[in-house]
Amino acid sequence: MSRFDYRRYPAFPPVPMTSRRWPDRQIRRAPGWCSVDLRDGNQALIEPMTASQKSRMWDLLLKLGFKEIEVGFPSASGHDFAFVRNLIENNRIPEDVTIQVLTQAREELIARTFESLEGVPRAIVHVYNSTSTVQREQVFGLDREGIKAIAENGARLVKDYASRYPDTDWTFEYSPESFTGTELDYAVEVCDAVTSVWEPTPDKKVIINLPATVEMSTPNVYADQIEWFCDHVARRDSIIVSLHTHNDRGCAVAAAELGVMAGADRIEGTLMGNGERTGNMDIITMAMNLYSQGVDPQLQLAGMDEIIETVKACTQLPVHPRHPYAGELVFTAFSGSHQDAIKKCLTKREDESQPWQVAYLPIDPADIGRSYQEVIRINSQSGKGGVAYVMQADHGYDLPRWLQIDFSATVQAYAEDTEGEVGSTEIHSLFEQTYLPETPRWRLHDYQLSRADGVDKLQLTIQDGAQSRQLAGTGNGVVAAFVNALEGFVGKSIVLVEYSEHALSQSADAEAVCYIQLNIDGDRSCGVGRSHDIVQASLLAILGALSRSPGLSTSAAA
Amino acid sequence: MSRFDYRRYPAFPPVPMTSRRWPDRQIRRAPGWCSVDLRDGNQALIEPMTASQKSRMWDLLLKLGFKEIEVGFPSASGHDFAFVRNLIENNRIPEDVTIQVLTQAREELIARTFESLEGVPRAIVHVYNSTSTVQREQVFGLDREGIKAIAENGARLVKDYASRYPDTDWTFEYSPESFTGTELDYAVEVCDAVTSVWEPTPDKKVIINLPATVEMSTPNVYADQIEWFCDHVARRDSIIVSLHTHNDRGCAVAAAELGVMAGADRIEGTLMGNGERTGNMDIITMAMNLYSQGVDPQLQLAGMDEIIETVKACTQLPVHPRHPYAGELVFTAFSGSHQDAIKKCLTKREDESQPWQVAYLPIDPADIGRSYQEVIRINSQSGKGGVAYVMQADHGYDLPRWLQIDFSATVQAYAEDTEGEVGSTEIHSLFEQTYLPETPRWRLHDYQLSRADGVDKLQLTIQDGAQSRQLAGTGNGVVAAFVNALEGFVGKSIVLVEYSEHALSQSADAEAVCYIQLNIDGDRSCGVGRSHDIVQASLLAILGALSRSPGLSTSAAA
Repeated sequence: MSRFDYRRYPAFPPVPMTSRRWPDRQIRRAPGWCSVDLRDGNQALIEPMTASQKSRMWDLLLKLGFKEIEVGFPSASGHDFAFVRNLIENNRIPEDVTIQVLTQAREELIARTFESLEGVPRAIVHVYNSTSTVQREQVFGLDREGIKAIAENGARLVKDYASRYPDTDWTFEYSPESFTGTELDYAVEVCDAVTSVWEPTPDKKVIINLPATVEMSTPNVYADQIEWFCDHVARRDSIIVSLHTHNDRGCAVAAAELGVMAGADRIEGTLMGNGERTGNMDIITMAMNLYSQGVDPQLQLAGMDEIIETVKACTQLPVHPRHPYAGELVFTAFSGSHQDAIKKCLTKREDESQPWQVAYLPIDPADIGRSYQEVIRINSQSGKGGVAYVMQADHGYDLPRWLQIDFSATVQAYAEDTEGEVGSTEIHSLFEQTYLPETPRWRLHDYQLSRADGVDKLQLTIQDGAQSRQLAGTGNGVVAAFVNALEGFVGKSIVLVEYSEHALSQSADAEAVCYIQLNIDGDRSCGVGRSHDIVQASLLAILGALSRSPGLSTSAAA
Repeated sequence: MSRFDYRRYPAFPPVPMTSRRWPDRQIRRAPGWCSVDLRDGNQALIEPMTASQKSRMWDLLLKLGFKEIEVGFPSASGHDFAFVRNLIENNRIPEDVTIQVLTQAREELIARTFESLEGVPRAIVHVYNSTSTVQREQVFGLDREGIKAIAENGARLVKDYASRYPDTDWTFEYSPESFTGTELDYAVEVCDAVTSVWEPTPDKKVIINLPATVEMSTPNVYADQIEWFCDHVARRDSIIVSLHTHNDRGCAVAAAELGVMAGADRIEGTLMGNGERTGNMDIITMAMNLYSQGVDPQLQLAGMDEIIETVKACTQLPVHPRHPYAGELVFTAFSGSHQDAIKKCLTKREDESQPWQVAYLPIDPADIGRSYQEVIRINSQSGKGGVAYVMQADHGYDLPRWLQIDFSATVQAYAEDTEGEVGSTEIHSLFEQTYLPETPRWRLHDYQLSRADGVDKLQLTIQDGAQSRQLAGTGNGVVAAFVNALEGFVGKSIVLVEYSEHALSQSADAEAVCYIQLNIDGDRSCGVGRSHDIVQASLLAILGALSRSPGLSTSAAA
């Protein structure tokens, strides 16, 4: 029997807000970032990081510009203890970086925590206890006063032990763990009790971190909780309000963003959102969200591929192909209309210093080390735009719109047939097979062109199977003359509808390519010609269009 | 040179809201769901679904309870056309399900769309054109009037063609594509123009779908856009307002949720959030978010494993291990304190019909076909709670707290040593090696117990290497008598500190297991005994504790 029954779950109670202000705010400055990859991230791995993986992650975090890094829970893990000692004893902590360690509010753990930090120039000691209703009642069996006493006692112990190590510049941090499940007035009461012990000042602040240990509501409710907390907590000017969201409802980034609008100063999170269960909030996504709105993210995220590689190697977890900003498919457009629009916008960009305004691409992939070539992939759902982009970017053919339409039908039929993605090389082959076959129906031998009295006269020989044929025509220009010659050859009316020609940039020896559309007794037909000579390219294109005409039987041409 | 420069991106402009109402709302009813897996999802795949994959996805969507399903873009893809015909001609559409197809606002495409739908009892024809500033200026080169004319013309064509197929019950849907990049007053103007053509009534509504084609702002701004739109659009009572969010900023679910609070009636999305680039909003996550708040999700999601398997097989994309509700790690707790809390909460649950209140687990994993056994995995970051849970759930040992502490030190040392996850079988082996070794230091041979005048007298033989030793002791009860006998044997003071015994539920032949903690001249030592006889189990536990005493040298025992 399925237990699927929504009635087992109570609704999350709303926060009684009287004058909510956060929805009118915008984030115009990055919050302080604290990476918890080496602690919260690490503890949630099937295989926790080895010492060398921790070092690699540490080096990456420094490179990205993190100034606060939670490096472990040294009183709970011998490995974490050893890693903290390694950082300190080998002088691996730059002057502008502060390490942070987590501990529960128990004396033996706090003592061991300070032992691990002996000799560090500066550090954040992060003490927590769980305050939610469920934890109080079901886990600790204590009432509000009992749980508050744990917090106060922890704060006192942290302060006492810190005073035994006067050479270190200590910052204290307290988390009412499971904050989202804690009555707001009680969360304030506990935090006030902690800061009563710590006595922070505006010059020597403490950090109060408000975790969505479990994400329990829509993100606006979390923002309400943060605004309410900031409005009611004592010593607000001496507190750095920090957020630590989890992703149980898939909204950890949204909650952190709205929480910053609601007054928070600092964010704890991880790269790619690693962490317990559904993970922590992803700092990469939030930082890139700020970046894409013109806000300095205060992190250097240009090397996205290196970030991904390191995170994967250290966590042994994949990065999803659709992960915002980082996934391999996120700058990829398959839909024809998307590809078309992207191509038009990219073409219109004349100056790289212009503001980025490209349909479907929230940022320039080049900013984070991706290239345009990766943007567009072709399958049966793709239209002319994507095909045109690949032909232009990869092969130098700047197809006119009418030829894009003609050719994309061929590509689509092929894609539907093969039921897969069509690579750039395949598209190029299809183009050559379609418009530039190795054994064309007619070959152009030689020609003489003369112009007199505004009339061009063309004489030429074409190879038609085993036969050589002499053709002649006149007209205003060589194209018109050739069309005139061909009308006589096939016995049909031929009108030149479209013409376009350009130098083939990707060709080493500067070939020209010509695109032609003919109307042959009412049937349209496209052709392409390619040659070192622009005239020959045109003639070949016309001949190609003629040979592809569906209404032209062999007998008619004979 | 890195191009990483936030100054290239303008900030998204806020919506001028005068009396914002949505932040005070809660979602108490599921929106109408429309799956776009077979269209938006399919078009974004490296390898679009084959006909048989589409059929499999269709069958799953019906099974989950979707009542509206966008099945393709039949005018743009021969495969989609064929699939629509297959559904209609083989009567595969249940009476309470409506298929939806997408088309651009061009006559040849609209004509072909209606062709594909011939004979369908009911259908939604979804017509769109792009309305954003960027699309108008850079892609279409048209002004506001020009773009509005495309929409109006499309609406008129859809209405005209529908009238040619009077046997079908038609619903019309219009999307101002790239809505999030469109000026709000203009979006309203275009939609009003469309509904002027369609003339919907409260009894015959049309759908107006407002896509975050690209997610461009924090989700609260999208909610502002939706509320503003709903407040200003004409014929609101005759319109179903639908949302279609994308995940470029990682907030597609949040945007959809806040958008529903802001007045939307309907959501388009996909299973697991498949779709262009970062994907569409994930209906599974949003539906489960509602479920976890006591709201009927109107979808049957009990079989999460089947959903994942089908999505993976059809899209050939992975589901991330941390994907909300669905990922393989999301009901897994590694942290010791988390495991401890979960265990306590699960133990306290006496009645399955109680509301779910378990720390760290937003829903009961059993609701969606997962089991508790998967919840807890043990590594070097785990504490006693996780170890205790595994010993109890998998092996039937209900370890008392003091033995959990004793044993978890062994497990942690082992985990740090092996640098990996410790499986349930390994934990069991460690337990047996530690407390129930195959070759114990002393073996219990036989014993005689007699009780007289409130005093128990115990005589017994133990095997000590090659020697047999006769021991005797007295006390109040067999345990006390044995402790007394052992005091004489080892020449030390022994105090029984802790005692606990229970039947081993997982043992086929009903063994008892006894846990003992002794204080031997100030050193604490734990032991475990296991036997069919409860007395023998106790004696073995005491002997085990004695033999594990660190302060007891071999000579002292001899």
